[in-house]
Amino acid sequence: MTSKPLPLRNIQITDAFWKREQALIRSAVLPYQWEALNDRVPGAAPSWWMHNMRAAARVVAARKAGGPYIPRQKPRGMVTEGPSPAQADPNLFYGWVFQDSDGYKWIEAAAYQLAMAPDEALQAQVQTAIDAIGAAQEADGYLNTFYTITGIENRFTNLKDHHELYCFGHLVEAAVAWKEATGREDLLDIARRFAACIARRFGPGRERACPGHEIAEMALLRLYEATGEPEWLELANFFLDVRGTEPSTFALEENARRRKDGLPELPVTAERYAYYQAHMPVRQMKEATGHAVRQMYLCSGMADAARLNGDADMRDACLRLWHSAVEEKMYVTGGVGGTHVGEAFSRPYDLPGDTAYSETCAAIGLVFFARRMLQMDADSRYADAMERALYNTVLAGMALDGTSFFYVNPLEVDPAACHTDDRLKHVQPQRQKWFGCACCPPNISRLLSSLGAYAFTQSADALFVHLYVSSRIDTELNGGKITLDLQADLLRNGKIRLTVTDGAAEGVLAFRIPDWTNGFTVQAPGKEQRQEKGYLYLAGSWRKGESISLDFAMPVRRLMGHPLIRETAGQLCYARGPLVYCAEEADNGKLLHLIRALPQAEVRVETQAIGAISLPVLRVAAKRVPVPDAPLYDDWKEPEMTDVDLTLIPYFAWANRGEGEMRVWLHT
Amino acid sequence: MTSKPLPLRNIQITDAFWKREQALIRSAVLPYQWEALNDRVPGAAPSWWMHNMRAAARVVAARKAGGPYIPRQKPRGMVTEGPSPAQADPNLFYGWVFQDSDGYKWIEAAAYQLAMAPDEALQAQVQTAIDAIGAAQEADGYLNTFYTITGIENRFTNLKDHHELYCFGHLVEAAVAWKEATGREDLLDIARRFAACIARRFGPGRERACPGHEIAEMALLRLYEATGEPEWLELANFFLDVRGTEPSTFALEENARRRKDGLPELPVTAERYAYYQAHMPVRQMKEATGHAVRQMYLCSGMADAARLNGDADMRDACLRLWHSAVEEKMYVTGGVGGTHVGEAFSRPYDLPGDTAYSETCAAIGLVFFARRMLQMDADSRYADAMERALYNTVLAGMALDGTSFFYVNPLEVDPAACHTDDRLKHVQPQRQKWFGCACCPPNISRLLSSLGAYAFTQSADALFVHLYVSSRIDTELNGGKITLDLQADLLRNGKIRLTVTDGAAEGVLAFRIPDWTNGFTVQAPGKEQRQEKGYLYLAGSWRKGESISLDFAMPVRRLMGHPLIRETAGQLCYARGPLVYCAEEADNGKLLHLIRALPQAEVRVETQAIGAISLPVLRVAAKRVPVPDAPLYDDWKEPEMTDVDLTLIPYFAWANRGEGEMRVWLHT
Repeated sequence: MTSKPLPLRNIQITDAFWKREQALIRSAVLPYQWEALNDRVPGAAPSWWMHNMRAAARVVAARKAGGPYIPRQKPRGMVTEGPSPAQADPNLFYGWVFQDSDGYKWIEAAAYQLAMAPDEALQAQVQTAIDAIGAAQEADGYLNTFYTITGIENRFTNLKDHHELYCFGHLVEAAVAWKEATGREDLLDIARRFAACIARRFGPGRERACPGHEIAEMALLRLYEATGEPEWLELANFFLDVRGTEPSTFALEENARRRKDGLPELPVTAERYAYYQAHMPVRQMKEATGHAVRQMYLCSGMADAARLNGDADMRDACLRLWHSAVEEKMYVTGGVGGTHVGEAFSRPYDLPGDTAYSETCAAIGLVFFARRMLQMDADSRYADAMERALYNTVLAGMALDGTSFFYVNPLEVDPAACHTDDRLKHVQPQRQKWFGCACCPPNISRLLSSLGAYAFTQSADALFVHLYVSSRIDTELNGGKITLDLQADLLRNGKIRLTVTDGAAEGVLAFRIPDWTNGFTVQAPGKEQRQEKGYLYLAGSWRKGESISLDFAMPVRRLMGHPLIRETAGQLCYARGPLVYCAEEADNGKLLHLIRALPQAEVRVETQAIGAISLPVLRVAAKRVPVPDAPLYDDWKEPEMTDVDLTLIPYFAWANRGEGEMRVWLHT
Repeated sequence: MTSKPLPLRNIQITDAFWKREQALIRSAVLPYQWEALNDRVPGAAPSWWMHNMRAAARVVAARKAGGPYIPRQKPRGMVTEGPSPAQADPNLFYGWVFQDSDGYKWIEAAAYQLAMAPDEALQAQVQTAIDAIGAAQEADGYLNTFYTITGIENRFTNLKDHHELYCFGHLVEAAVAWKEATGREDLLDIARRFAACIARRFGPGRERACPGHEIAEMALLRLYEATGEPEWLELANFFLDVRGTEPSTFALEENARRRKDGLPELPVTAERYAYYQAHMPVRQMKEATGHAVRQMYLCSGMADAARLNGDADMRDACLRLWHSAVEEKMYVTGGVGGTHVGEAFSRPYDLPGDTAYSETCAAIGLVFFARRMLQMDADSRYADAMERALYNTVLAGMALDGTSFFYVNPLEVDPAACHTDDRLKHVQPQRQKWFGCACCPPNISRLLSSLGAYAFTQSADALFVHLYVSSRIDTELNGGKITLDLQADLLRNGKIRLTVTDGAAEGVLAFRIPDWTNGFTVQAPGKEQRQEKGYLYLAGSWRKGESISLDFAMPVRRLMGHPLIRETAGQLCYARGPLVYCAEEADNGKLLHLIRALPQAEVRVETQAIGAISLPVLRVAAKRVPVPDAPLYDDWKEPEMTDVDLTLIPYFAWANRGEGEMRVWLHT
């Protein structure tokens, strides 16, 4: 039985914690990002988004006016250095080749916010952005500022690296979100025209092609579901089917460029393209590999395609890739992508803490993938991983005040090492204001602003509660309309209460039984109860005024890594509910590797102010190895350790109190 | 009381183990290297040494004949790609810019071998090499094939990177060794003429300059000690004194090149040159930093200078650098240089095992430094580190059959990871036949062939035994000639016997008390005994026929790293005598990180054949964590471990039985 996310306008998030996060996006992140897109943030790396849209619009206008346009700029690939915005040539392209996507992600997040609450000023900003996008669209629907400015004749010649289809995918995501939020079709029309332009060129019986950075697949399938137009399903299927087949579309592209440059051709094989997940047909894939964000976006598209096509082979591939990514290659924080080399998945069980990459966007991609697996099959293991990624790595990506961001999410940090060691140059001990390659901040914005679409899905007769986020939900079960009030406070306890505040319906409410609980009680008088794949199904009639409650025990857990993980041998970490905890220097002093956790020690759950909010923290007795005046190597002896009282804070809240050491896994 | 190494011709090494190592150099390594220098090894990276010497000789001959020589090649810095030797243009330079040094190191090693035992064939090969070098020397004494071939007008313009003074240093080392071995002055004259050419250009009141890769300093001081000619002491002092002073000679060089290229000048500061140890005046240095081989060679030169000049400030700097390199930054295997980024020293206590660099040449450099510190001050801590580096990292650098070599010496290896992980691409799980950048193999040759110069030093009235290597030694104490027979077998036990086999003398024999012993007995009837700084001094008269004996207890040691070393937390390693031990897959299966050492378990010392030789191994009971069918993260519990009988082999002997895992530090 498949399910779909509820429309966001049907969900009012009331959760104390998550409402604050969403409000932060609205009040702090989106306004800042709008200024960034317009290059009006002093000291920040310019985005060039609006600049490039306007420069492209001038080219498009000139072309439409019939005059020949001679591009003044060679396509230079990743153009990361440039003048200050004030000194920029208004007719040139600046920034990364995928810069168009920044604005699309911002629009998508803004649309989700507008779906929850109207806001004229924000809506006007989006409209300004959409107008700029529309003006930059070529007459045939093509839309990419880089190629419009630098030479339209080169478009679609480097899909491997030049992100045209990636930008397209984000445009589609934004367009559907905007339509769903406001009912306006302006951006959807732009996206549909670009999609049609792409579909005229690529597809069965036409040119073979494959996106170098996936997202077009899931975006096209979303467009298909939103519009019912079958051509987008067909194009998405084509992109998935052609990927990794011989002859490699990337190799054909590369050789076309090499011929142009007078270079000898290379063997036309997909083998070289594992980084892009283009090394084998997707239905044969067994291992999550290459660039982690790309892999997660691909998996999301595959899962959608498996569901929409009823494609069992595709679903089996999704299951294998899920197993590899989540059950062999995921950090305890839900992060994926263990190596900075290629921002990629490493070997199974290779999960180093201090050199971790664990990109925020990859964890977001895991959330996307997980929700889509849940839509196919309500199995709580998908929601468990989704929750783990969301509450830990995704949240860690943004400061508690919403003004700075992590791209990389290590599990062990020594700031002194980060500042001096080139092997750790990808690891920042403090969040940054903005990135020239600004993928993570707007990705956090769009995910957190659409949280309801991950917390709840529904089928004709059932509503699934995957994440316990306090919300008011308007939904239908078997045609009966009801309004539900879900009350939860997962940061503090596992007590859940659901009240029918309006309407009446017959059907099922399905509640996930989280992996972090060791038992629960349920009060659901008159409902038929059954459990399946980690969900508690309560069936019956639901009428205004009635309540059910669930109480999931939320013990402090001491976790160990699988013995095949070399990095966590002899170590443990603490977790409670969805939260993984860490030790920070601010509470526990320097040299956190000297702490020795005591697995049997009793843990007290308390609250503590961190930044502007109060969060649950753990206090536990531990030992600390002293730093002796001893030789570098000495005869082995048990150290005479001192007693310490350890404070552990939620991992997502680290690095909000100045720079210092941090450590998730503690030696025992 | 300072001391000097004994001439090698006065030392006959009779030690079963070391004699075999020296014979391997003679029979396997030197012949192979001679073929390599002549580009006659099929499949190996060409050395281009003889090729470049001959090409340079043609240029020199043309210049001497008065014709103008127009170089056909631009100086290209590191020229590492080229045709096969058969297809090479005989008039062009190929290979690395420092390639001249390869042949010089080979000559030096050959000379040491010839000092121990005559060999007409080898001597003839050396003579061929020397003739080639002589023919490549410019009329004014300048000698560097790269600049002679590519444009002599550019010489001495890039001392920072182009290794002219590095090659010069190795030439001097070879020349002095050759003179000491054979009495022949031909190579010494060549070296002296080049030295004079350098001294005419650089020095007090002349041009300021500083070698980009140190060795000229220690080489010039050796030349001074060998010849008594004060100009070499003066030039060495100049190179040491100018290093790291403002304005930076490297920055001046760089700016001269930038002016030539029309680029703006950079600030003239030494700060940017820590990699080259040119960031501060040497007498102010506190921390071993930058490229580890460079740092160790610099320290060696500084120690010689401190001794020869009686320079207390220089000696204090040596002591600080020793402390930093050995007491804060040395692997338990005596390796130094923890990071592959710049082949460099990392932070204090940052000593990762799997990503270790620990270059063989850096350990050799540590041996050089240690011997020079011993010459200033017979303190056993220098000899302890020297022995540790020699018996572990230096020996590990060469296969037991002498035909393959490690450049990098990790303390933990998973071959599967090395083959797939770019973060480990510097780590080879098996020794290589030869390197294009062939610094380590000839450096091992020259060190092992001159082992006697590290085992023993002497002053007017004392002979110091730093390393227990069975030898016949001809020496003088206070003018009295004696011949000593030292018997030791350190791979097996700590029993030392010294017999006076000829002559008579009054004086002191000083024996190092190793750091690995926990007690010793001495039988030295009639000798006055005292201990100082880890040496046992036996004073008296020594006459033919008499013997003394020492018995150093050689317990198996369980070592732990200082708590500030994050990488070794909760781990131990085994050592006995000078040998550090490791676990290999060949004996203990895969997944060595699952082994749990039992600190209290009794260890049996046995012998086992490894490759062609029989070596001491350790057998000890341990535990092994099973690999459960469990989730990636699970509730913490003590694993139910199985008993295993562990075999540990000497670290230096690893990777002689095919490819497999290896691990020095074991979890407890």
